[in-house]
Amino acid sequence: MTNCRILVVNGPNLGNLGVREPEIYGSLGMDALPGMVESVLGQKASRIELSHYQGNGEGQIIDRLEAARKDGVDGLALNAGAYTHTSLALADCLAWIGVPSVEVHLSNIFGRTDQPLRQQSLIGRNCIGVIAGFGMMSYALAVCALWQHWLKKNS
Amino acid sequence: MTNCRILVVNGPNLGNLGVREPEIYGSLGMDALPGMVESVLGQKASRIELSHYQGNGEGQIIDRLEAARKDGVDGLALNAGAYTHTSLALADCLAWIGVPSVEVHLSNIFGRTDQPLRQQSLIGRNCIGVIAGFGMMSYALAVCALWQHWLKKNS
Amino acid sequence: MTNCRILVVNGPNLGNLGVREPEIYGSLGMDALPGMVESVLGQKASRIELSHYQGNGEGQIIDRLEAARKDGVDGLALNAGAYTHTSLALADCLAWIGVPSVEVHLSNIFGRTDQPLRQQSLIGRNCIGVIAGFGMMSYALAVCALWQHWLKKNS
Amino acid sequence: MTNCRILVVNGPNLGNLGVREPEIYGSLGMDALPGMVESVLGQKASRIELSHYQGNGEGQIIDRLEAARKDGVDGLALNAGAYTHTSLALADCLAWIGVPSVEVHLSNIFGRTDQPLRQQSLIGRNCIGVIAGFGMMSYALAVCALWQHWLKKNS
Amino acid sequence: MTNCRILVVNGPNLGNLGVREPEIYGSLGMDALPGMVESVLGQKASRIELSHYQGNGEGQIIDRLEAARKDGVDGLALNAGAYTHTSLALADCLAWIGVPSVEVHLSNIFGRTDQPLRQQSLIGRNCIGVIAGFGMMSYALAVCALWQHWLKKNS
Amino acid sequence: MTNCRILVVNGPNLGNLGVREPEIYGSLGMDALPGMVESVLGQKASRIELSHYQGNGEGQIIDRLEAARKDGVDGLALNAGAYTHTSLALADCLAWIGVPSVEVHLSNIFGRTDQPLRQQSLIGRNCIGVIAGFGMMSYALAVCALWQHWLKKNS
Amino acid sequence: MTNCRILVVNGPNLGNLGVREPEIYGSLGMDALPGMVESVLGQKASRIELSHYQGNGEGQIIDRLEAARKDGVDGLALNAGAYTHTSLALADCLAWIGVPSVEVHLSNIFGRTDQPLRQQSLIGRNCIGVIAGFGMMSYALAVCALWQHWLKKNS
Amino acid sequence: MTNCRILVVNGPNLGNLGVREPEIYGSLGMDALPGMVESVLGQKASRIELSHYQGNGEGQIIDRLEAARKDGVDGLALNAGAYTHTSLALADCLAWIGVPSVEVHLSNIFGRTDQPLRQQSLIGRNCIGVIAGFGMMSYALAVCALWQHWLKKNS
Amino acid sequence: MTNCRILVVNGPNLGNLGVREPEIYGSLGMDALPGMVESVLGQKASRIELSHYQGNGEGQIIDRLEAARKDGVDGLALNAGAYTHTSLALADCLAWIGVPSVEVHLSNIFGRTDQPLRQQSLIGRNCIGVIAGFGMMSYALAVCALWQHWLKKNS
Amino acid sequence: MTNCRILVVNGPNLGNLGVREPEIYGSLGMDALPGMVESVLGQKASRIELSHYQGNGEGQIIDRLEAARKDGVDGLALNAGAYTHTSLALADCLAWIGVPSVEVHLSNIFGRTDQPLRQQSLIGRNCIGVIAGFGMMSYALAVCALWQHWLKKNS
Amino acid sequence: MTNCRILVVNGPNLGNLGVREPEIYGSLGMDALPGMVESVLGQKASRIELSHYQGNGEGQIIDRLEAARKDGVDGLALNAGAYTHTSLALADCLAWIGVPSVEVHLSNIFGRTDQPLRQQSLIGRNCIGVIAGFGMMSYALAVCALWQHWLKKNS
Amino acid sequence: MTNCRILVVNGPNLGNLGVREPEIYGSLGMDALPGMVESVLGQKASRIELSHYQGNGEGQIIDRLEAARKDGVDGLALNAGAYTHTSLALADCLAWIGVPSVEVHLSNIFGRTDQPLRQQSLIGRNCIGVIAGFGMMSYALAVCALWQHWLKKNS
Repeated sequence: MTNCRILVVNGPNLGNLGVREPEIYGSLGMDALPGMVESVLGQKASRIELSHYQGNGEGQIIDRLEAARKDGVDGLALNAGAYTHTSLALADCLAWIGVPSVEVHLSNIFGRTDQPLRQQSLIGRNCIGVIAGFGMMSYALAVCALWQHWLKKNS
Repeated sequence: MTNCRILVVNGPNLGNLGVREPEIYGSLGMDALPGMVESVLGQKASRIELSHYQGNGEGQIIDRLEAARKDGVDGLALNAGAYTHTSLALADCLAWIGVPSVEVHLSNIFGRTDQPLRQQSLIGRNCIGVIAGFGMMSYALAVCALWQHWLKKNS
Repeated sequence: MTNCRILVVNGPNLGNLGVREPEIYGSLGMDALPGMVESVLGQKASRIELSHYQGNGEGQIIDRLEAARKDGVDGLALNAGAYTHTSLALADCLAWIGVPSVEVHLSNIFGRTDQPLRQQSLIGRNCIGVIAGFGMMSYALAVCALWQHWLKKNS
Repeated sequence: MTNCRILVVNGPNLGNLGVREPEIYGSLGMDALPGMVESVLGQKASRIELSHYQGNGEGQIIDRLEAARKDGVDGLALNAGAYTHTSLALADCLAWIGVPSVEVHLSNIFGRTDQPLRQQSLIGRNCIGVIAGFGMMSYALAVCALWQHWLKKNS
Repeated sequence: MTNCRILVVNGPNLGNLGVREPEIYGSLGMDALPGMVESVLGQKASRIELSHYQGNGEGQIIDRLEAARKDGVDGLALNAGAYTHTSLALADCLAWIGVPSVEVHLSNIFGRTDQPLRQQSLIGRNCIGVIAGFGMMSYALAVCALWQHWLKKNS
Repeated sequence: MTNCRILVVNGPNLGNLGVREPEIYGSLGMDALPGMVESVLGQKASRIELSHYQGNGEGQIIDRLEAARKDGVDGLALNAGAYTHTSLALADCLAWIGVPSVEVHLSNIFGRTDQPLRQQSLIGRNCIGVIAGFGMMSYALAVCALWQHWLKKNS
Repeated sequence: MTNCRILVVNGPNLGNLGVREPEIYGSLGMDALPGMVESVLGQKASRIELSHYQGNGEGQIIDRLEAARKDGVDGLALNAGAYTHTSLALADCLAWIGVPSVEVHLSNIFGRTDQPLRQQSLIGRNCIGVIAGFGMMSYALAVCALWQHWLKKNS
Repeated sequence: MTNCRILVVNGPNLGNLGVREPEIYGSLGMDALPGMVESVLGQKASRIELSHYQGNGEGQIIDRLEAARKDGVDGLALNAGAYTHTSLALADCLAWIGVPSVEVHLSNIFGRTDQPLRQQSLIGRNCIGVIAGFGMMSYALAVCALWQHWLKKNS
Repeated sequence: MTNCRILVVNGPNLGNLGVREPEIYGSLGMDALPGMVESVLGQKASRIELSHYQGNGEGQIIDRLEAARKDGVDGLALNAGAYTHTSLALADCLAWIGVPSVEVHLSNIFGRTDQPLRQQSLIGRNCIGVIAGFGMMSYALAVCALWQHWLKKNS
Repeated sequence: MTNCRILVVNGPNLGNLGVREPEIYGSLGMDALPGMVESVLGQKASRIELSHYQGNGEGQIIDRLEAARKDGVDGLALNAGAYTHTSLALADCLAWIGVPSVEVHLSNIFGRTDQPLRQQSLIGRNCIGVIAGFGMMSYALAVCALWQHWLKKNS
Repeated sequence: MTNCRILVVNGPNLGNLGVREPEIYGSLGMDALPGMVESVLGQKASRIELSHYQGNGEGQIIDRLEAARKDGVDGLALNAGAYTHTSLALADCLAWIGVPSVEVHLSNIFGRTDQPLRQQSLIGRNCIGVIAGFGMMSYALAVCALWQHWLKKNS
Repeated sequence: MTNCRILVVNGPNLGNLGVREPEIYGSLGMDALPGMVESVLGQKASRIELSHYQGNGEGQIIDRLEAARKDGVDGLALNAGAYTHTSLALADCLAWIGVPSVEVHLSNIFGRTDQPLRQQSLIGRNCIGVIAGFGMMSYALAVCALWQHWLKKNS
C-alpha cells in the first residue's frame, strides 16, 4: 500500500513564516504543519508524506514543479504569494505538469478590496480548488483535500 | 462543555444537490455531510451540531442569517450560489451579524474565466476564509475550519 | 396526442400590464394572450395549454421555475423585467432546469442606449432565443416559437 | 383638510436600527422618528401621518410599494440599503408607481471611496431628491422635504 | 385591398444558407421562407409579398435599403450578420429611411459570451424589435411581426 | 448663549439664482433663504446667523473657505456647482479646514445619467452629508441639518 | 494662373441632402454649395473648381480618393458620415494620399453625448482641421479654409 | 441697421499668440484677426464689431461670459485652451448664458492621439459648432460662421 | 501530382505597394513576390501556383474569398490592412470558408502602441498563423508556411 | 558670476504649511526652507536666490509662471497640490514657458492607492523630474537638483 | 566570408517540447530545428550557426540575452512563453541590446480570445517581426527571416 | 557614533550604466555615485557607508533584500527598473522587511505617456518617497534623503 506524497510550495516572501509580521500571520512556521495535519486527520496522517519547498524566484518555482512532475508527486499545495496575481508562467506550468494542485493562502485574499490587481488569481484556473483565510490551517486543510482527492483516484 | 453549533446555508438553485447535474456536482446530497465531517474529524465530530437551510430568495436568506445571530450560532458555512457575485445585501448582512463565516463553493469558481462577473466575490470580504472546488467535501472542510476557529476562541 | 404546455412568467413590476403606463406598454393585459396566440396560429392554438405566473421576487420566480421543471412543462416564455440584467441566479436556474425558454420583452430593450446596464442580458445565454419590441405580441410570437420547437422535438 | 400620508421604507439589514453597530448608526430606532419630525416641524407635524415598513427581500419591498400606490400614499422616504446599488427592479418600480420619493441614507454613502459599486445609486434617478449622512435625522429631513413637496402640490 | 410588401435582407456571409455549416444553421435555404410563413399564418400569408436581397458589402446594403425606401416597402426583416455589431452607417440608414424594421438572427447572438464586441447591436436601436435564436423560423416570426405591425397601422 | 453661524457658499454659474432658467431652478433667489429656514425651524431660526458668498473661481472659493476657518464659522452649506465633479482642490480644502459641511444641490444630480462625469462627487467624501433635488429648499434643509449637528456638539 | 481644385466627398446616407430629415439638416442640397461659397468669398470663388462625389461604400470612397490623388486634386472636404467613427481604412487612405483634407459635419457631432462611439473621429487625425455644426455652411467654410491653405502653399 | 457684435475669448496660455512657439502657432497675434476677417468677408466685415478677452483663470472667463450675456453680445468665438477638456463649469456657463458660441482651436486637437483626455471636448456640446486646425484662420472662419448665424436669425 | 494553389489577398490602401511611402514599405511591388518565394524555396517553388487580388471594399474581399472557396484554393495569404482591426465580417468569412489562411502584415503592427484599436486582430483568430514585420518578405514566408501546411495534409 | 534664481511655487491649500495638519505635514513652514537648503548644500547655498509664491487659483498660478518666464527665472520647484492631477492648463503652461521645473510633493502621493485620480500627474510630463515623500525636505532636494541642473548648463 | 549566428531562446515551460502535450505542440523537439531550416533554405542553411537556450526564469533569460549582445550574436528567435505577456523587463532588454529579434510562438496566440491578458505582446514592440501558429516550423521561418535580414545588412 | 549604512539596488537591465544608451542615461556608471554624494553632502558623506547590488531576477533581488534586513541595513535606494511596474512580489518584500526605502529612477518615468503600464508604480506605495528624472544624481539625492531620514530617527 503506497503512501500519498504531497509537496507544499511557498513562493516569494514566504520564507519567514512565524517570524514575519506574526500579528498577521501567526507565530507558527512551516514545521508546525505535520502536527496540524495529524490533529485533523488523526492516524490517517501517517499515510501522507509531506515535503516542502520555498523560493523567491518565479523560474525557480517552475523548475521545482517540473521536478515534482518527474518524481511523480501526488499532490501540490501551492501558496504562490504575489505570483498568484502576476505569473502567467506559473499558471502555464500547473496546466501542463498535470499534478493535482490546491491554491493556498494564509489570509483571505479575496477580501482585499483596496488593490484590484490582488483580487484576481491567475493560477486558480489550473487548480482543483482554493483554500484561503485560515492561517497555517489553510495548508492543513489543503493537504486534507489532496488526500481525499488521492483516495478517490486510488480506490 | 458546550458544543459548537454550525449552520450550513445554501442559496439559490442549490436545493437539489445530488439530483442536479450529478456529472458536475456529484450524486451526494446535503444528508451526506455529517458522515463526511465524521470521516475527516473522527470522534471530534460529535462535538459539532450541524443544521441546514436552503433558500432561493436573497431576502429569505438574510432573514435566516439574522435569526442565526439571535440564536447565537457559532459558525456559518455559506454557499451563496449566484448571490456570491451579485448580493451586496448579503455581504452587508455578514458584516453586521458578526457570526464567523466561511464562503463555500462546490466547484472552483475562481477558475471560470468566461464570465467576468463570476470572478468576483462580494461576500468574501466579510468571511474569514473561502473553500472552493472540492464538491461536497468543500462543506466538510469548511465545517472543519469553523470548528478549529471555535476551538481557538473557546480555549 | 398530448398537448404542448407552456408557462408564461412575468417578473418584477409586470403585475399591472394594461394598467401601467398604457401609452408605452399598450392597454392589453395578460388575459389577451390566448386570443392573440389564436389569431396567429389559428386552429393549432388549441393544442397549446397556456398558464401564467407573475412574481416580484427573484427567489419566488426561481421557486416557480423549479416547480415547472417538476411538472414537466414543455416551454417557458420569460419576461424577467429588470432581473434580465441583474439576476445571475435566474440565469443559473434556467441552465439547470432544462426547460426550453424564450426571453421576452415588451419593448426593444436593446435599443436603450442611455443605461449600459440595461444593454446586457444575463439570462439570454441560457435561452434558445429572444423576442423583444412587439408589446403583448412578443409573448404570442414566443409561444409560437416554443410551439415550433416542441413540434420538431416531438415528431 | 386632508393629511399628508408618508410611508418610510427600510430595506435589507435595516431591521435592527438602534441595535446594529450603534457606534456607527446611533442608538436610536425607527420609533424615534415621530419625535424628531416634531422637533423639526413643530405643530405642523400633526398634519403628517407616518407609517413604516421594513423588508429584507427585493420582491417584498416592490410588493409593498405597489400597495402604497394603490393606497394613494403621498410620499415615500426610502432607505433601500444595499439595493440602492444593485436593484434595477426597485428603480423600475419607483418609475412607474409615481409616488414622490426621497432617497435616504444614514451615512454619507457618496463618501465611501473603497468600493466603486457603492458609489452609484440606481434608484436615485427615479427620486425627486436624496438626503444622506445625518443618521436618523436623514429620515426626519426627508419627511420634511416630502411635506413641503406635498404642500406645494396641494396649495 | 393592398398587400403588405416585406423585404428580407441578408448581410455578409449569409449567401449560402442551407450550405454553410448546416449542423449549426440547418439545411434550409431562403427559398423555404414562404412555406414557413404560410405554415404559421395560414391563409393570411397570401396578403404578404416577400422579396429577398443578399449582399456582402456595407455600402451595397445601404444602396438597397435606400431603394426600398423609394419603392415604399412596408417592412424590413434584416439579418445584418457581422455588420450588426460594427456598422454605424447601417444604423444611420435605418434611422432615416423610416421603414419599420425587425432585427433577425439565426442563432441567439446575445448568448455568446466569448467576444464582447458581438454582444452589442448597433442597429437594434433603430429597429422596432429583435428576434434571434430560432434558425430559419426567426425570419418567419419577423415577417409575422411586421405583418401585425402593418395591420395595426393600416386599420 | 452663542449663535450658530452658518456660511452658504455658491460656486460657478450660481450667481443668478431666480433669474437663470427659472422653469428649472425656480424664481427664488438666495434672499429667500432666511424666510425658508424660518418657515421650517420656526423660532429656533433666530439662533442661526446666515451669511452668503458666491464665486465663479475655484481659487476664490478656497480663499473664502480658508477665511471661514479663521473666522470660526460653525457650518458650511456648499453648492459647488460643476466644481463638485472636477475640483480635487476644493475637496482637499474641505478636508483640512475642518468646518462641518453639507453638500447641496438644487436638482437631483445623481439622477443625471447622460454624463458619467456628473455622477460622481469629489467633494462629498469630505462632507458630513448631502442634500439634493429640492430647489431652494435644499439649502434650507442643509441649514437645518447643520443646526442639528451644531446643537448636538454644543450640548 | 492655375485654379484651386477641390473635391467634396460625402459618405454613407448623405445622398439625399435636402430631402432627408430637412428639419435637422435643412432643405438645401449639395447644388447650393457653389452659391454659398461665392456668398462668402465673393469674386475669389471664381478661382475655385468644385467637384462632388457621394458613395455609400467604404471601399468605393477609398477608390475615389485614390483617383483624386492621381488627378492631383488640391484639397478635400470630406463628410464621411458614420465612417468618421469606424473606418480605419479611410483614415489610412487619407494618411497616404497626401491631399490636404478637412473633416466636415453638418451637425456638431462632438456635442452628442449619448453614444460614446460617435464621440471619436478616426479620420480627424489625418486631416488638417475639422469644421462641424453649421449645416451646409460647414462645407462652404471648409472650401474657404482649403482655399486659404492652397494660397499659402502656392504663393 | 445694427451691427453684429462678436466677442473672441481666449483661455489659459493663449495670451502670447505670435510669440509663443511661432513654429507651431504661427507669428500672427490676435491683432491680425480683423484683417483676416476682412480678407475673407470683404466689405461685409464692416458690419462686424470684434472685441477680445484673454484670461488664464476659469472663474475669470466665466465672469467675462456672464458680462457678455448682460451686454447682449451676438456671438462668441471661444478658444478655451486646456479648459476645453477639463472645465465643466465653463460648459455650464455656455449652457445658461444662451449666446451662440463656436468652439475654436489653433491646431487640430482631435488629431492628438497621445493623450486621451485631450480628445474630448466638454464645452463643445454647448456650442453650435467647432472649427479647429487652421491657425489664426480658425478664428476668422468662426467669426464668419457666427456672422452667417446672426444674419439668418435677424432676417 | 497536383500543385498547391495559393491566393494572396491585399485589402484597402494596398493597391500601390512599391509606390506608396517606399521609405516605409520598400520599393518592391507585388510582382516581386514570385521571385522572393523562389529565392527562399528554390525548386520547390515551381509546385506553387500564386494568384493575387486587391480590393478596397470589405464586401468585395468577401466576395473574392467566397469565390476562392468555390474554386478549391489551397491556401490564403491575407493582408487585410485596416480591416484587420475592424472587420468582423471578414473574420466570419474566414471562419466558414475553411481555407487555411495566414494573416500577413508588412510592418510589425503589434509593435504600434499609439492606437489601441490597432493592437487587436479580429481576423487572426480564424487564421492558422500570423507573420508580420518583414516587408514584402512577410508574404514569401506566409506562402512558405502555407506550402508546408499543404504538404503535411497531402502526404 | 551670476547666481541661480529659483522660484518655489505652492498651489491650492498649501498656504498654511506648519499649521495645517502638522502630524502629517510637519510643523515647519516655508520659512524653514533656506535653512534646510543650506544644511544640505553648505556654502554653495549662497549662490542660490530663493523666492516663493503661493496661490489657490489655477489662473493665478499660470499668471505667476508667465511672469517668471519674463523675469528669466532659472528653475522652478512646483508643488501644485491637487492641480497636479486635474490641471491640463498648468501642464500646458510648463510646456511653453520653458523654465526647468521639478514636481514636488510633501507626501509620497504615488503611494496613495485609494483614489485613482490621485495616482496620475498631469504636470509631471513637462517637468525634468519629481521628488515626493520627504516633507519640507522634498523642496530642499528639489532646489538641490535644480542647482545641479543649472550648474551643468552654465559650465 | 563570415556566417550568420542565430540564437534561439525558449522561455518558461518550453523545456520539454516534443514531450509536453504532443497533441497540441507536436512530437518534435528543438533538435529537429536544424533539419527544418535546411529543408526550407537548402544549401544556404550551411551559412547559419544555430545555438539554443532554454530558461524558466525571467532574470536568467535577461542574463543570457546580455551575454548574446557581448558575443555579437547576429539574430535572436525568441519564444518567451508566458513572459511575452507579462515581462516589461524582457521588453526593456530587447530594446537596449540591439540584436535583431523575431518573436516566435508555436500556436497562434493572437487567436486566443478567452484571456485578454494573452492577447497583448509586451515584447513584440521591440522585435522586427512576429511569427506565430506554425508549430516547430515557426522557429524555422523565424531563422529564415533573420537570415534575410542579415543578408540585406551585410551586402 | 555609528555610521548610516545604505544599500543601492539596481534591477533588470541596469547592469551596464554608463555603457547602455549613454545619450539617454549619461556616461557615468555606479562607481561615480560616492563622488556625487560627497559633492552634495560634503564632509557629512563620510558618515555614510554605501554598498551596491545589481540583479536581473525578481527572486534574486528579493533574496538580496531579505539579506539586507538580516544585516540591519539602514536605508535602501531602489531602482527596480521594469519591475517597478510589474512586481507585486517586490512590493510585498518592501512591506515586510521594514527597511526605509526610496524609489529611484534615472529618467522621469511619470512623464512617459505612451505606455499606460509604465505610469504606475507598484512598489512606490511601500517606499517613503520617490526621486526620478535626474540621471545618476537621482541616486545621490536618494542617499541624501535617506541620510536625513536616518539622522532624524537617530537623534
